[in-house]
Amino acid sequence: MDVYVPFDAIDPKRRLESILTADERGAFAEAMLADVLEAVRGADATPHVLSTAPMALDAPVIVDERGLTRAVNGLLDLADRPVVLVMADLPLATDEAIATLTSAAGDVVAAPGIGGGTNALAVHVEDFEVDFHGCSIEDHRRRAVDAGHDFRTVDRYTLGIDIDEPDDLAEVLLHADGDAAGWLREHGFDVVADTDGRVGVERAPGD
Amino acid sequence: MDVYVPFDAIDPKRRLESILTADERGAFAEAMLADVLEAVRGADATPHVLSTAPMALDAPVIVDERGLTRAVNGLLDLADRPVVLVMADLPLATDEAIATLTSAAGDVVAAPGIGGGTNALAVHVEDFEVDFHGCSIEDHRRRAVDAGHDFRTVDRYTLGIDIDEPDDLAEVLLHADGDAAGWLREHGFDVVADTDGRVGVERAPGD
Repeated sequence: MDVYVPFDAIDPKRRLESILTADERGAFAEAMLADVLEAVRGADATPHVLSTAPMALDAPVIVDERGLTRAVNGLLDLADRPVVLVMADLPLATDEAIATLTSAAGDVVAAPGIGGGTNALAVHVEDFEVDFHGCSIEDHRRRAVDAGHDFRTVDRYTLGIDIDEPDDLAEVLLHADGDAAGWLREHGFDVVADTDGRVGVERAPGD
Repeated sequence: MDVYVPFDAIDPKRRLESILTADERGAFAEAMLADVLEAVRGADATPHVLSTAPMALDAPVIVDERGLTRAVNGLLDLADRPVVLVMADLPLATDEAIATLTSAAGDVVAAPGIGGGTNALAVHVEDFEVDFHGCSIEDHRRRAVDAGHDFRTVDRYTLGIDIDEPDDLAEVLLHADGDAAGWLREHGFDVVADTDGRVGVERAPGD
């Protein structure tokens, strides 16, 4: 089965700019992408990267300069079903979680992400378009149901945690063990717990 | 199987005080508790509430005025194995997710929560103590591994999302359909998406 991984190769992970330089954001995004590609392969699927610019990767790269929503809808116009999408910023994703997505019953199967996002999607029907702006999980549910399709969700923490904001880096350090977690450790990041509430990260001085 | 649900009956959900009054926090916490009890029953298990004060509930209530960590360690001293704990602020929890926890192999099985928390735990061995302060999922993993136990995690979004902070209320409205979601809607809360990033909530004026 083919799995498509959209990737912003131009200016990725802008919401991490308070904590990473532009070059670092690029390198960290590529480390997360490598983790996702490995999980896809671990689920016996074939990853394809849907990138906004040419990249040298050990996976086929489809270049589409348009934004995420338009590029994915372009893919939905052309590709055989099912069209399976997994976002590139899911370094916690396990082989098992990806296999659960690719094998799930349903016409449209989505993995919800924190804050209303859609972090992965399997589209088994022809007449479905995506919209990743706003509260996309609700939009995708409504579009599927309104068209009479069977909408299902995949309940996985490791697909739900996309890495967008500085505090999310703690999730990588705690729950991932691939390139992205290694990159953060090499660049001085560590988990820091305050006395109450959720943990965050700190970066060693000089790193 | 018995499942224990710790509950702070005195001053619950303090991190919601910017958005809910003390009375509202109490009512919302009890609505979330009701959802968790229903999911436990849906998983063919028997819920017991481990409360900091007496409560009138349709489930057995064990009163222990000590804090969460000491009350749970007191329970671990007395109760038969496995001791299964599910936190009371998981209104997204499904029957399937609870059943996955109660049936999982392993000596110590944990459901990670956002920000380093431990949202549910199944302890099958005698010599294990909990500590819910700080980065508890890492502490629990280390304690189990150091004692030679097989530590496993349960990968479920619906167990990972505990409701502590105002933005978490959006998760309840998007993904839960029980008492807690109903309570929020009755009290004027709705999901609001800005153009970028994760959704939050807004409350209708006058509610």
